[in-house]
Amino acid sequence: MTAPQTHFAPEGVGIVHRQYLTWTEALPLESGATLSPVTLAFETYGELNPARSNAILLLHALSGDAHAAGRHSPNDRKPGWWDAMVGPGRPFDTDRYFVICSNVIGGCQGSTGPSSRNPYTGRPFGARFPVITIGDMVRAQTRLIDALGITRLLAVAGGSMGGFQALEWATAYPERVGGSILLATSARSSPQTIAWNSIGRRAIMSDPRWRGGDYYGSEPPCDGLAVARMIGHVTYLSEPSLETKFGRRLQRGDEFAFSLEQEFAVESYLEYQGESFNTRFDANSYLYITKAMDYWDLPARYGSLDAAMARVQGPTLLLSFSSDWLYPTGESRAIADALARQGRPVEHLDLPSGAGHDAFLIDVDLQRPIITEFLDDLARDLV
Amino acid sequence: MTAPQTHFAPEGVGIVHRQYLTWTEALPLESGATLSPVTLAFETYGELNPARSNAILLLHALSGDAHAAGRHSPNDRKPGWWDAMVGPGRPFDTDRYFVICSNVIGGCQGSTGPSSRNPYTGRPFGARFPVITIGDMVRAQTRLIDALGITRLLAVAGGSMGGFQALEWATAYPERVGGSILLATSARSSPQTIAWNSIGRRAIMSDPRWRGGDYYGSEPPCDGLAVARMIGHVTYLSEPSLETKFGRRLQRGDEFAFSLEQEFAVESYLEYQGESFNTRFDANSYLYITKAMDYWDLPARYGSLDAAMARVQGPTLLLSFSSDWLYPTGESRAIADALARQGRPVEHLDLPSGAGHDAFLIDVDLQRPIITEFLDDLARDLV
Repeated sequence: MTAPQTHFAPEGVGIVHRQYLTWTEALPLESGATLSPVTLAFETYGELNPARSNAILLLHALSGDAHAAGRHSPNDRKPGWWDAMVGPGRPFDTDRYFVICSNVIGGCQGSTGPSSRNPYTGRPFGARFPVITIGDMVRAQTRLIDALGITRLLAVAGGSMGGFQALEWATAYPERVGGSILLATSARSSPQTIAWNSIGRRAIMSDPRWRGGDYYGSEPPCDGLAVARMIGHVTYLSEPSLETKFGRRLQRGDEFAFSLEQEFAVESYLEYQGESFNTRFDANSYLYITKAMDYWDLPARYGSLDAAMARVQGPTLLLSFSSDWLYPTGESRAIADALARQGRPVEHLDLPSGAGHDAFLIDVDLQRPIITEFLDDLARDLV
Repeated sequence: MTAPQTHFAPEGVGIVHRQYLTWTEALPLESGATLSPVTLAFETYGELNPARSNAILLLHALSGDAHAAGRHSPNDRKPGWWDAMVGPGRPFDTDRYFVICSNVIGGCQGSTGPSSRNPYTGRPFGARFPVITIGDMVRAQTRLIDALGITRLLAVAGGSMGGFQALEWATAYPERVGGSILLATSARSSPQTIAWNSIGRRAIMSDPRWRGGDYYGSEPPCDGLAVARMIGHVTYLSEPSLETKFGRRLQRGDEFAFSLEQEFAVESYLEYQGESFNTRFDANSYLYITKAMDYWDLPARYGSLDAAMARVQGPTLLLSFSSDWLYPTGESRAIADALARQGRPVEHLDLPSGAGHDAFLIDVDLQRPIITEFLDDLARDLV
């Protein structure tokens, strides 16, 4: 569904480097625990203007990381996860904006998480890492934004769990957010989302190689993480997209094998997703990040969704996708309606897409003009 | 949503006994293999009339068995899986009809399956049991119907995988089927259904206690089967029903535990479902039965859905349920449309229900008058 992108500055942001910010001042967590030291891995694209007013913070989803755009090396097979949206002439236009993306705490791509060294033991935290929340992730990000000398972000933007973080920014730090772009997201995790996440955690924690979380240095719980990822993948796609991509096609030949092995193309696809996820993701991070997602409940925090939305200061753009059944249109509409009731400027578009929840990453052509225009409006007064 | 059932002959069918039919003549399977000896566990309710014309065959779903109605002992906590529908004065009226239900081959409730003794080795088949199909299940059932001296069934009826078998009966043995009642079912397994089943099998087969299927006599793969069942359960419910039943309620107290353990009520419910399933179901049977479901593709067998439906002789009643996203309304509508194009008598009703796929087992009050009337019409000429 994605058109060729060669008309958008094919070079994109080019070669980028991962950066790190580490601080020793304790980060207080919602659980009451604290974390110290804390490292955030981050990347930036474009240049901060002298007024420090052109910064946009991108927030990543469950399996994402700080690498939103460009390549770390010319040999990289794929660019960052939102490369199609970030670069010269792209919606997050690096000729105009200073774009930042950091790996969440609890993650496994450079930020402090369960695979990090516990300073008290000298060994990886494992399951002794404190349980974190979306609020904790964002509180850590405020330190990064402070360190970059930025008082107020022009915008925050994210899809799925990235949208949770963007909403957290807009409600917990409204004076620091010029505007919010929320894609395929929700103000709370539904019981169905909790169910899928919980089953994934169950699969990981019952893999004997999980060893109570202390598998570092030995074989990790690959089977559990694969099953968790496979469940996730089905929820990211729509039934029509599975029909179109795979239907009932067999992976090899056209006759049933009459064995218990995987043989449909959709099974091979899921198996590949499960296995490749194991090469880049830490099972404990999957546990902690999905737990943070399950805790996400903005209406409960402020008493109601309306009370939460009353805190938002800048304009909000919400994009949902018609075939997304994990974070269906109604979840975005509820946020938009609450913002409107509170007199806040809000635009909600439900985009026609067959790609399911993944549409926010895939159907970039649908989003480009809308996000470009929203940012143009926000940036009108930039000096 | 189910009203009290006391106005329907509260005693139901009373105490019932499981019966067995065993034969040694080889049962040919679609794979080319054969199975011998074969045992079918079955139950019957009501009396076969002298003309042998009042028999109705009930077909069970993935986790069902031959125990459709009544209790095996006065102390049984629960009656059979469709007790609300079977008995004196109930839709499958045992004062009028002779109702039969058998456990499918591949199953684990008395019929020949992977936990049965392999006559060549004297040990349980395990993963050496031949892979079976819905057609094989039904071919075995024809032997039971033959043995009961029944040439033609007044009706076949089943939901979900039971509907697959009813469709198989109506197309492979149309002259033996007076009419078909198909609930929450489909003419083929969709790639999404295959995906869920496959992930469940992946969880079972990667549980180290599965041991290639040879776990009988040792600890079974409880964690794998629990995860498979938990996935299944989410697909059987609807998002609205999860909101109503559980919402974001915590199982204990009203504060987050900030631990990795299960704490939401929906998690406890799923865990309970996974654990209790382990007390009554064999993991290998789960592998074989879900594989048979994945192979289910009636249009492929006959060239098209229309060609398949052209084979049906008696009238067909289709019931779908508005919130069922596993076998959504469109799947029933496709069958109904094909039957109508072929000039076959067909009635399709989409019943309003929030119970998801499970509605066919739960929302019996919606189904009672419709099924009663359909059977009345079929039985009009009974002597």
